[in-house]
Amino acid sequence: MTNLANHTALSALGRRTAPPTISWLMATALARPKLISLAAGFTDNATLPVGLARQMVNSVLRAPHTGQPALQYGNTAGENNLRRLTAEHLQKLDGVTGPSHAPERLLISGGSQQLLYMTLEALCDEDDIILVEDPTYFVFLGILQSRGIRARGVRLERDGLDLAHLATVLEGLKKSGEIPRVKALYLVSYFQNPTGASTSFEKKRRALALLKKYEAAAGHPLYLLEDAAYRELRFAGPDIPSALTLRGAASRVIYTGTYSKPFAPGIRLGFGLLPEPLFTTVQRIKGNHDFGSANLLQQILAGALASGQYEQHVAKIEKRYGQKARVMKHALAEHFPPSVEIWESGGGLYFWARLPGGFSSGLKSKVFQTALKNDVIYVPGELCYAEDPARPKPDHEMRISFGTASEANIREGIKRLGAVLKKLL
Amino acid sequence: MTNLANHTALSALGRRTAPPTISWLMATALARPKLISLAAGFTDNATLPVGLARQMVNSVLRAPHTGQPALQYGNTAGENNLRRLTAEHLQKLDGVTGPSHAPERLLISGGSQQLLYMTLEALCDEDDIILVEDPTYFVFLGILQSRGIRARGVRLERDGLDLAHLATVLEGLKKSGEIPRVKALYLVSYFQNPTGASTSFEKKRRALALLKKYEAAAGHPLYLLEDAAYRELRFAGPDIPSALTLRGAASRVIYTGTYSKPFAPGIRLGFGLLPEPLFTTVQRIKGNHDFGSANLLQQILAGALASGQYEQHVAKIEKRYGQKARVMKHALAEHFPPSVEIWESGGGLYFWARLPGGFSSGLKSKVFQTALKNDVIYVPGELCYAEDPARPKPDHEMRISFGTASEANIREGIKRLGAVLKKLL
Repeated sequence: MTNLANHTALSALGRRTAPPTISWLMATALARPKLISLAAGFTDNATLPVGLARQMVNSVLRAPHTGQPALQYGNTAGENNLRRLTAEHLQKLDGVTGPSHAPERLLISGGSQQLLYMTLEALCDEDDIILVEDPTYFVFLGILQSRGIRARGVRLERDGLDLAHLATVLEGLKKSGEIPRVKALYLVSYFQNPTGASTSFEKKRRALALLKKYEAAAGHPLYLLEDAAYRELRFAGPDIPSALTLRGAASRVIYTGTYSKPFAPGIRLGFGLLPEPLFTTVQRIKGNHDFGSANLLQQILAGALASGQYEQHVAKIEKRYGQKARVMKHALAEHFPPSVEIWESGGGLYFWARLPGGFSSGLKSKVFQTALKNDVIYVPGELCYAEDPARPKPDHEMRISFGTASEANIREGIKRLGAVLKKLL
Repeated sequence: MTNLANHTALSALGRRTAPPTISWLMATALARPKLISLAAGFTDNATLPVGLARQMVNSVLRAPHTGQPALQYGNTAGENNLRRLTAEHLQKLDGVTGPSHAPERLLISGGSQQLLYMTLEALCDEDDIILVEDPTYFVFLGILQSRGIRARGVRLERDGLDLAHLATVLEGLKKSGEIPRVKALYLVSYFQNPTGASTSFEKKRRALALLKKYEAAAGHPLYLLEDAAYRELRFAGPDIPSALTLRGAASRVIYTGTYSKPFAPGIRLGFGLLPEPLFTTVQRIKGNHDFGSANLLQQILAGALASGQYEQHVAKIEKRYGQKARVMKHALAEHFPPSVEIWESGGGLYFWARLPGGFSSGLKSKVFQTALKNDVIYVPGELCYAEDPARPKPDHEMRISFGTASEANIREGIKRLGAVLKKLL
């Protein structure tokens, strides 16, 4: 691990930026060929739309008059066709139309990751504060760390944010005089990474109302940043309307989505809907980053959406992930000791396991090290918690993914992990 | 034009980020259907490799075992195959191998633009200083403006940087105590945007030596950031070796290149070779931006490079741009008054025209406004100069592009512009 802290030619951001949280895990996985990784959040290779992508590319590149525009520069905000199709897709998911869902406020990006990055650039100075779920998406925490933005954790329950704790955190920040530094609440609202929990619609409504209540003290808007990355990997239960459908959303809700998870990470497109002045700001920042995402990729996706084949593809992969989740659920029931609490999810790529009191799951723990010796790894929960002076980092949890592993490897991996836990707990 | 300066929810960066310099020009062009734009720096539609891209995509997506990896996540630094092929391509251009050209220090990005952006993130805090050519690439100036980085201009001659002026600028910054804020010298070294000028090898060598001389006063390395975006659009004269071939380059030269210009902007890939600790830092920042550029695009390009078809394509487009440049040269000789100084280029997309003393070419000038009324536009030179307290912005120059216009429109556009100049000068 290279320590950059003392390189004086670097910017403060450069010196601060830490290696990715899970690079060590990834390297470990590569070094042990027999290892079963229940750590990776990758999508399942078999779900990738090879034929569909080929068909769409051939349709776009079939002739110069369609191919040349796809290989030329485009708009910074994204191709208007894809923006419209994406907005319509979202309107259909949410069952509404209206100003919050207008294509004019939608921006196409390099995965939703780039949109999250640029939104933080637009919103936060060093030492500003973002409220996050406790635990949350560790790459988002990495961006905060790199940019010198502070995170404050809000406890998570199985149906999403603990609202009483959100109220306590906001009130505490008001009392300490730090509320003007707060810019947004970040929610991974669907089948959350890492816990698989989804935030109920009622909780989104009340969270937005709570933020509103503290705006006078903050002196500026407090945004609800809804990251819906896993929304379309849903195999059980009804879809929950997004925060964009809430009253007042057009001026306070930032919604980000991705086509990486439901379609293909190798096509790496995402999007965001943003209120002004954020839309204009992020669009300008996007111009400075890259003038807009690659046109060819946007055309592939627009073709898949327009033809209805995108929706068919999503239905197919939801079925497949549902099957893999069932396999994992049965394996967990069979092999894990009953003292381990399991959060089962109706979508996404993850189950969440909590060890009983006193046991640690962290990188240096006996549980993790023994699991590694037995050729199975998971993501230790501690990696998903922000640095927050208000509490120690919980270290008794595990993110267990059924994303990439085959059904046989899910069974075998959970069996190995279960044996380790039965021995040590 | 939205003024964001007073939006208190935005970060300092967000409030500062200005609209793109040429957005007004682009909007103007769209609003006048008969307008001939000699302003756009786009590539020529007819040069775009529609058939070649289709062939490469079909080769990649022909079967699941080749298609799935292309649609999956990849490495943050880029696909190793493309990194190797890019390094080899550069070794061939430079006629050398060695540590400066190693694929391990090469990073694939979303156009070279993203590489420039991330390099500035890694190097510069607010109020730091980057030395730039006077004039230079206006989007680079836009990034500096957005990030609160100061630019200091170094005069440009027809064979590149004015070294005596570089020495004067460095000495002045040392005397004023600001030299520790200087991080790099940015050179668009091949067929520069906007002037078409190339920096001679001897000038690169002496510029790097000058930077080295001031490192003790700066207290840290002073990098030479060589932007070679137009290197492969060369239709006259020999190729000049890059600064990577200089002694000491491995620790002081950052080299950025793009596949947008010589291949396809819609595939939007670029790359950079960086010394440590910059390579590690920028790789981490890239992870936070987007985990790495889209795999599918990288595979298309790797296929084109590996098959030798990339080189054939470049040879073809060099010929075409050479032809268009000749058309423009003849039209300029025929229609422009002899008092206008023309810088002709052996590559790239631009000619540079300088009006005689006292005449202005700026957006509000009589020349620009009359040209617009006569349905022809160019990029006013003033847009390509940094905000530098050391001098007023020159405003008597024009960037005239033969990139997108057809041969007929180049002739007609130059004829219209020449008539305006003859009338007004």
